[in-house]
Amino acid sequence: MRQAGRYLPEYRDLRGDRDILETIRIPDEAVEITLQPLRRMPLDAAILFSDIVVPLVAIGIAFRIEAGLGPVLDEPFRSRADIARLRALEPEADEPYTLEAVRALAGELHVPLVGFAGAPFTLASYLVEGGPSRDHARTKALMFADPPTWDALMGALVDVIVPHLRAQVGAGASALQVFDPWVGALAPAPYRSGVLPYMRRLFDEIADLPVQVIHFGVGTSELLELMRDAGGDAIGIDHRIPLDRAWERLGPSIAIQGNLDPAVLLAPWDVVEREAIDVLERAGGRPGHVFNLGHGVLPDTPVESLQRLVDLVHARTEHDG
Amino acid sequence: MRQAGRYLPEYRDLRGDRDILETIRIPDEAVEITLQPLRRMPLDAAILFSDIVVPLVAIGIAFRIEAGLGPVLDEPFRSRADIARLRALEPEADEPYTLEAVRALAGELHVPLVGFAGAPFTLASYLVEGGPSRDHARTKALMFADPPTWDALMGALVDVIVPHLRAQVGAGASALQVFDPWVGALAPAPYRSGVLPYMRRLFDEIADLPVQVIHFGVGTSELLELMRDAGGDAIGIDHRIPLDRAWERLGPSIAIQGNLDPAVLLAPWDVVEREAIDVLERAGGRPGHVFNLGHGVLPDTPVESLQRLVDLVHARTEHDG
Repeated sequence: MRQAGRYLPEYRDLRGDRDILETIRIPDEAVEITLQPLRRMPLDAAILFSDIVVPLVAIGIAFRIEAGLGPVLDEPFRSRADIARLRALEPEADEPYTLEAVRALAGELHVPLVGFAGAPFTLASYLVEGGPSRDHARTKALMFADPPTWDALMGALVDVIVPHLRAQVGAGASALQVFDPWVGALAPAPYRSGVLPYMRRLFDEIADLPVQVIHFGVGTSELLELMRDAGGDAIGIDHRIPLDRAWERLGPSIAIQGNLDPAVLLAPWDVVEREAIDVLERAGGRPGHVFNLGHGVLPDTPVESLQRLVDLVHARTEHDG
Repeated sequence: MRQAGRYLPEYRDLRGDRDILETIRIPDEAVEITLQPLRRMPLDAAILFSDIVVPLVAIGIAFRIEAGLGPVLDEPFRSRADIARLRALEPEADEPYTLEAVRALAGELHVPLVGFAGAPFTLASYLVEGGPSRDHARTKALMFADPPTWDALMGALVDVIVPHLRAQVGAGASALQVFDPWVGALAPAPYRSGVLPYMRRLFDEIADLPVQVIHFGVGTSELLELMRDAGGDAIGIDHRIPLDRAWERLGPSIAIQGNLDPAVLLAPWDVVEREAIDVLERAGGRPGHVFNLGHGVLPDTPVESLQRLVDLVHARTEHDG
């Protein structure tokens, strides 16, 4: 369950007035926030407390956090010349705080630590739109209008993302997630020409790492097969596509992570139980099912419902927790 | 092409500082704004200049427009008691300006006038979230948690929407669109139990009208068959699903409206041409294809590209324009 923390009062207490990017740069705090959900419930993995713009900030792209909105870039990428603002990430020099947090966590945790990175399309959208976007129109227009600039942008982003992922594994992360929440804005044809080649390169360049990689997107019903072909050991799906239907489409040889609607957790427990059991039944007990929400935990989610959900999933999957 | 106007300088000039809800209540202005796109290009239909919250405002729900955001309701619906804030719409008394604009347009236009209404789920989301929402979490939580309140809310909304649609046809509209842009937030199972029955009732209650009805949603890949079963003569799809694939899923007996990505129109003409031809080829010349964008025209769209697109579609479909 990603974005671990924001639904916990102890997280809000610890972070106080500091914004998320400042907090991530303090390894002790990133470690503590990563551990907080595990103190509350017997989760099967820990997710590093970080943010997808961290490696971009680490190479000097001046994202700032705007309250209630998210990461904002006051001078968005608009032309070919902007690509020069990107360079390959050198993790030890550029983001020592990330590696310090991962090393501390790897020494302390008794469950796998999942590292992660934003995928190139999603990061490109943050750079081009200058922040979160509903339609990603400028990003898509750049992709459609200027393939050479798009190629340079996506290639440069792979050169940021790959070292970021490799360094997390080098420091002790035991699984990875490549997180592409905005890619569902694309139809299959532009995904195939404008995203798939860069995703393939990304997965190729981490293929030698001894870890499983989850490839996650939102609203990707029409993209699932292409995402599978791009790479990853598991495909992460949101709640919009029934899990059994996704598995029919993807075939039995790949794992699937998902896919309880996070909004269900705002309802009473009997509803959560019914909907979680529905997800588990659609998974049909396949060993390749990684139970998760279809997207991040919503801020108003009752912690008790999450705790009961973890217990329910463990009980139903005869997992030793 | 919906939201006709906001990409035209003459629209921005006419509206000036008035917000969209104020402007809609001035029939002469609504008529003029409806006609503006037709003065620029030989469109096959006119879309009434209105907004989906109009019938709610007309019965006293105090939406206001927040710049850059959209309709906002300061006291959102949160409990069963809030349902009493809704009542059946009486168009002649509650929204005479809508009917006056439709009558004037019907007398003047030489192409069909398309009236429209928001669908119950989308309107419920505006009421429950208090404005536009990315995840519609409170709305879905209400649907999951409290079916009797959800039933009362959705039923009351149908009692607003049906008179709004019927009155537009009575005043001269010659086609209708039922607009459900947010329903793609749902998986098929909750759509089936929480939306489909109300959509069926809505379509049943306008079935005697002598007009074609378009049933439109965004991000509805997994919902298409259920939307078809709910009703409508044509299903409107966004760009995310290839048109030929949507038709395979829906079968040949229903018309489809769509589905050029509006972001394509921000690219140079050769890209627009290529992508529009792709849509037309996927439609395969079927008479049931209503060419349109997959969503509204983006504000920065060059008018010349729209004009050339209209000509291209007419030339390619041997339409008399």
